Amino acid sequence: MEKFFYPRSMVVIGASVTKMNLGHIIVLNNRNNGYEGNIYGVSREEGDIAGAHVYDSVDKIPEVPDVAIIISPAQTVPDFMEACGKKGITHVVIESGGFSEYSEGQQTLEDKILEIADRYNIRFIGPNCIGTVNFDIKMMMPFGFFPLTPAGGRVAMITQSGGIGGSYLKEFGDNAIIPGKFASIGNKLQIDEVDVLDYLIKDEKTDIITMYLEGFKRGRAFLDLALLSDKPLIVQKANRSDLAAKVAQSHTTALSADDAVVDGGFQQAAVIRAEDDIDFINAVKIIRLPLMKSRRVAVLSRSGGHAVLTVDACAKFGFSLVDFSPAFIETLKTIYHMRVIAHQNPLDLGEIFDYTIFTKILEETLKLPDVDGVLFNHLYVSSYESEMSRDFLGNIGRLVEQYQKPVAVTVNTDAPELLNISKSQGYPIFTTPLMAAKALDISATYYEEKMARDARGKNVLSSVDMATIDKIKNHCLAEKRIPLTDEALQIAEAAGLKCVAGVTVKSAKEASKGNLNFPVAVKLLSRNASHKSDVGGVRLKIQNHKKLAEAISDMKKAFKNITPQPTIDGFLIQKMVAEGVECFVGGRQDPVFGPIVIAGLGGIFLEIFKDTSIRLAPVTKNEAMDMIKQLQAYPVLQGARGKMKADMDAFSDVICRVSQLLATAPDIAEIDLNPVIVHEKGKGVSIVDSRVFFK
Amino acid sequence: MEKFFYPRSMVVIGASVTKMNLGHIIVLNNRNNGYEGNIYGVSREEGDIAGAHVYDSVDKIPEVPDVAIIISPAQTVPDFMEACGKKGITHVVIESGGFSEYSEGQQTLEDKILEIADRYNIRFIGPNCIGTVNFDIKMMMPFGFFPLTPAGGRVAMITQSGGIGGSYLKEFGDNAIIPGKFASIGNKLQIDEVDVLDYLIKDEKTDIITMYLEGFKRGRAFLDLALLSDKPLIVQKANRSDLAAKVAQSHTTALSADDAVVDGGFQQAAVIRAEDDIDFINAVKIIRLPLMKSRRVAVLSRSGGHAVLTVDACAKFGFSLVDFSPAFIETLKTIYHMRVIAHQNPLDLGEIFDYTIFTKILEETLKLPDVDGVLFNHLYVSSYESEMSRDFLGNIGRLVEQYQKPVAVTVNTDAPELLNISKSQGYPIFTTPLMAAKALDISATYYEEKMARDARGKNVLSSVDMATIDKIKNHCLAEKRIPLTDEALQIAEAAGLKCVAGVTVKSAKEASKGNLNFPVAVKLLSRNASHKSDVGGVRLKIQNHKKLAEAISDMKKAFKNITPQPTIDGFLIQKMVAEGVECFVGGRQDPVFGPIVIAGLGGIFLEIFKDTSIRLAPVTKNEAMDMIKQLQAYPVLQGARGKMKADMDAFSDVICRVSQLLATAPDIAEIDLNPVIVHEKGKGVSIVDSRVFFK
Repeated sequence: MEKFFYPRSMVVIGASVTKMNLGHIIVLNNRNNGYEGNIYGVSREEGDIAGAHVYDSVDKIPEVPDVAIIISPAQTVPDFMEACGKKGITHVVIESGGFSEYSEGQQTLEDKILEIADRYNIRFIGPNCIGTVNFDIKMMMPFGFFPLTPAGGRVAMITQSGGIGGSYLKEFGDNAIIPGKFASIGNKLQIDEVDVLDYLIKDEKTDIITMYLEGFKRGRAFLDLALLSDKPLIVQKANRSDLAAKVAQSHTTALSADDAVVDGGFQQAAVIRAEDDIDFINAVKIIRLPLMKSRRVAVLSRSGGHAVLTVDACAKFGFSLVDFSPAFIETLKTIYHMRVIAHQNPLDLGEIFDYTIFTKILEETLKLPDVDGVLFNHLYVSSYESEMSRDFLGNIGRLVEQYQKPVAVTVNTDAPELLNISKSQGYPIFTTPLMAAKALDISATYYEEKMARDARGKNVLSSVDMATIDKIKNHCLAEKRIPLTDEALQIAEAAGLKCVAGVTVKSAKEASKGNLNFPVAVKLLSRNASHKSDVGGVRLKIQNHKKLAEAISDMKKAFKNITPQPTIDGFLIQKMVAEGVECFVGGRQDPVFGPIVIAGLGGIFLEIFKDTSIRLAPVTKNEAMDMIKQLQAYPVLQGARGKMKADMDAFSDVICRVSQLLATAPDIAEIDLNPVIVHEKGKGVSIVDSRVFFK
Repeated sequence: MEKFFYPRSMVVIGASVTKMNLGHIIVLNNRNNGYEGNIYGVSREEGDIAGAHVYDSVDKIPEVPDVAIIISPAQTVPDFMEACGKKGITHVVIESGGFSEYSEGQQTLEDKILEIADRYNIRFIGPNCIGTVNFDIKMMMPFGFFPLTPAGGRVAMITQSGGIGGSYLKEFGDNAIIPGKFASIGNKLQIDEVDVLDYLIKDEKTDIITMYLEGFKRGRAFLDLALLSDKPLIVQKANRSDLAAKVAQSHTTALSADDAVVDGGFQQAAVIRAEDDIDFINAVKIIRLPLMKSRRVAVLSRSGGHAVLTVDACAKFGFSLVDFSPAFIETLKTIYHMRVIAHQNPLDLGEIFDYTIFTKILEETLKLPDVDGVLFNHLYVSSYESEMSRDFLGNIGRLVEQYQKPVAVTVNTDAPELLNISKSQGYPIFTTPLMAAKALDISATYYEEKMARDARGKNVLSSVDMATIDKIKNHCLAEKRIPLTDEALQIAEAAGLKCVAGVTVKSAKEASKGNLNFPVAVKLLSRNASHKSDVGGVRLKIQNHKKLAEAISDMKKAFKNITPQPTIDGFLIQKMVAEGVECFVGGRQDPVFGPIVIAGLGGIFLEIFKDTSIRLAPVTKNEAMDMIKQLQAYPVLQGARGKMKADMDAFSDVICRVSQLLATAPDIAEIDLNPVIVHEKGKGVSIVDSRVFFK
């Protein structure tokens, strides 16, 4: 990637000499902004753009440029790639659009490009992108006019959409955020977000990495990198909805990912997910400050009304308001004399007009050991207090560094002043109390997830009995069917899980000979009915042999009215288990992220409230416990509603082993243990049912 | 209220001649901005402020001013009120702070003011406020410097916090929203939000009423007005959290309201609740356009990336994207020639740079009968397209009027241009796709709620047997106890509800004599244990007399270990009822909103997910059905999870009758029917248990 960010020379293929086309603009940008490398053009007509020579073929360029930028009609791209290869150019950026994002018919064009790249060992970005920018060396590949920024920026951006990337750079400018490296990766035909991320994580000049993505090309590799990154990653993953997937497909051929899996994976790897465009900029602003290490805040406000809004926002994000101690109130009294407003948290500063006092109060507040962060509402009239406000923000910046706690400042003043103060000084400001509180929430959440990530420990290397799994798989393969319930339970046992024992019988008659431990449950074994209960294939609490025979006979009768009629491969008879909380543990090989594990409570929790936890598999014990704790229904396991406290330890063990199974046996496309009855603490779990699909 | 908005003359009490104090600024504002009425000052020292004469006492003023504005220290306010009364001044605005919002000790000061107002028949606003503004006549009472706006604004604002009100007026200015009347009402000691709202609903010069409130003084009266208002009411009700209630109390002595009740009441009355500061301004912007009458949208976008963000936002708010018909695509082809981008919804306009084409496409889109609203993403470079963009927005405004459908425009350009275009032209713009979609959601939701409100029908006037209720009440009063379960069930029956029959016995022995219909449930009747099940006072599914005697004996034994020991007033024996969905219907006399009714599913739905519907009582049949439909768990009643479709008609009837009961019998402080077993459609409900508290 180095050459894409530090090219010593570049050629723009498709830069017209005579008219202001897109290639022409790229050459101009670099010439005018001060890029010091050589830059050439290639076009039908020879000539000159702002002092850069334009040749009529690639081979005429007097050196081998580090990077070629191709911005010519799609159909001409393969020939130019070929020319680049012959010339010995190893790095290409294809900005041209009109490939697979336009219609499926252009797939062959992409195949051709890949073949040429392969043959010449060319690394390329695109197509359908605006390339990279390195603001430090004033190098910019995008075909729009790009603003210059000061050198030394340490915030990088990877974007799948050039348009969104451009908007965000503009917002960076409006908020005094200085970008360093920028890469627009378009269709990601060869180089993708993982390649760029890997480079930026190692890059010494990058501290914060921001991303706009519409899909993942290698989701697993992406999260594996993220898991080890000490640099904050702020990612807006758009294309969340089914509705959007269709659009994104036509826009940049993004591979759509299950949004819930993205959420789970991001949480696990402490990737900051920006929910939307506003969130994105706010995250960049706050993450530059020291992190919020717990959720205890103090609120200082120049307006009582804004203090109320701030406190509402604090409540929304689970912040607690520190009680100011009598000692601290005494300290405040030495700083200023209150008249009509009481000393409390939030502290209403409405009576004070002296910025020295603001600074002193803020410093004393930051000194409090039980304050993790401060929200400051600053309202001012620009005609009087503009200068003082700038100084004050400078002072806040110094105090924040000194005490290593974030201060989220909301500024309320007239709009031109607001714009100006955001742009012209480095301390981040927010425009509403809600945004400021949300920003602190981003900081606190990132800290929490990072701590959890770093304390996640090692995977318990549970062994998986692959021989059993392979045997069942081959059996199914031969018979072209899915595993029956008893086989699916054996697969769970192969992962080291103890399932509820059962007897498999072919008929009621065979069952009557068994020495059964009533009450029992009877379940249909069927190669074509994976959802037994949907066809009435499960009967519970059967008290004796007579009832059992009746149940089986009833089932058989009922099956006759079902289309397609379920094949009867036998019946599984299990002892009824003791009471507990009905849970499930499952997982699958996700097309984007590989093996993932899912857990939650069953029944309405799953079906009505979609209350599940998802992680990339395998998970460690700590991660499994975190999965359980983040369930909305967690109170049920803790003993709400008069229930006993559930055996979370045993439950988390099932999660770990299922995750290990999926990671070890990639042939298992999907597994679902449901229900897993979680009993009272110390009494373990009963795995009652299992479904498995092979690839 | 008329005089507060159209005073022909005013006096500012506390306007210093020599120094720039707050009263001085009020006089200056009116003199400088062009208020044409007479304005006087009263201060210790006689003199002159910008041509307005300042007297050293109220009685020296040469006329009786329509309004007196008092802005002197709190302690001096009663004397000045007295002077106003003597002078014959009937309308006073008390801007001074330091009353009950400061400390409880100042309560007497407020009592004094109320007494004086009463004696002289004075109507007053405040204290602790910044008074009213009528921009049409350039009259402004606030003590800060206030910007002038053009006359003719039709958006009014009522605010409890002067600071927030001021911020919002500033935002109005930045967004070309012209305010008309403004009232800051502070502590609302006499005149409150209901008085001002009543005036503004009737005011011919007001179309939209916006409010910032931290509490309701007369919540019921407020919603009764709202229910009948044809003008949109946009209300930000802050002070939502327990955390904030404390602050708001010290800030403007706001009476805190249960946030869930506010949500229910607002929905019922079609009050637009602004969730936060950003929402507030967006609501004002969108509500000025024609309303969105259903949720089918078209997206037109100058950037593919922004189209993806827009569609994600559409999915979030439940919008559907209209499929463009072949005929429409043919129409599009006559307007422009596509090259690399496909014709679909969202329509990517990335290849078009001609504003005439944009306008034509927009017009054709608005013509489509299945499009209810349009989202347009406009990205432009200000140096080239500033003028064209202004014209374009003007065209959009005309098309929106012509086709009576909203177009939510997101503008993406550099920040100074964005500020300028927002301020300088009247068509509303949004800064991100999410905000634009959220705005359309506000419009669509308002339309839906208004339709539901107007179609809510009449209350079924179910009679309530007050004699029975009074008898039970007197009985309880005499014995200083709460109603026992059997009495509480009788109260439900007094509202016309049929409850599950039961036999009341004093002992197991008495029970054994009864002719019981087993299986039965037995429940403790106890004057001091309102939550029977918490003390183990409920046993279900008892099969015979022997088991019943055991159950009662067991209970008695268990009670001995409970502190305080439950009194045994007897036992209620009920037949076990058929299966169904466990629901509840309850309600109370809310301190802010009066009688309210609450319904939902029981168990975890209530306890873990807090899934309830709330309305002001009484409710109509349609409102009760809406309550049921808005439950998250509604699918359970519709027959999810293999259950039968529940008898929603019978369920809604219980809701109506309980609401009628609470509205008719204000002595019932609280009632809770739980569980109400809702059976299969057509089979009604079983009301199994009831708790009632009298006032």
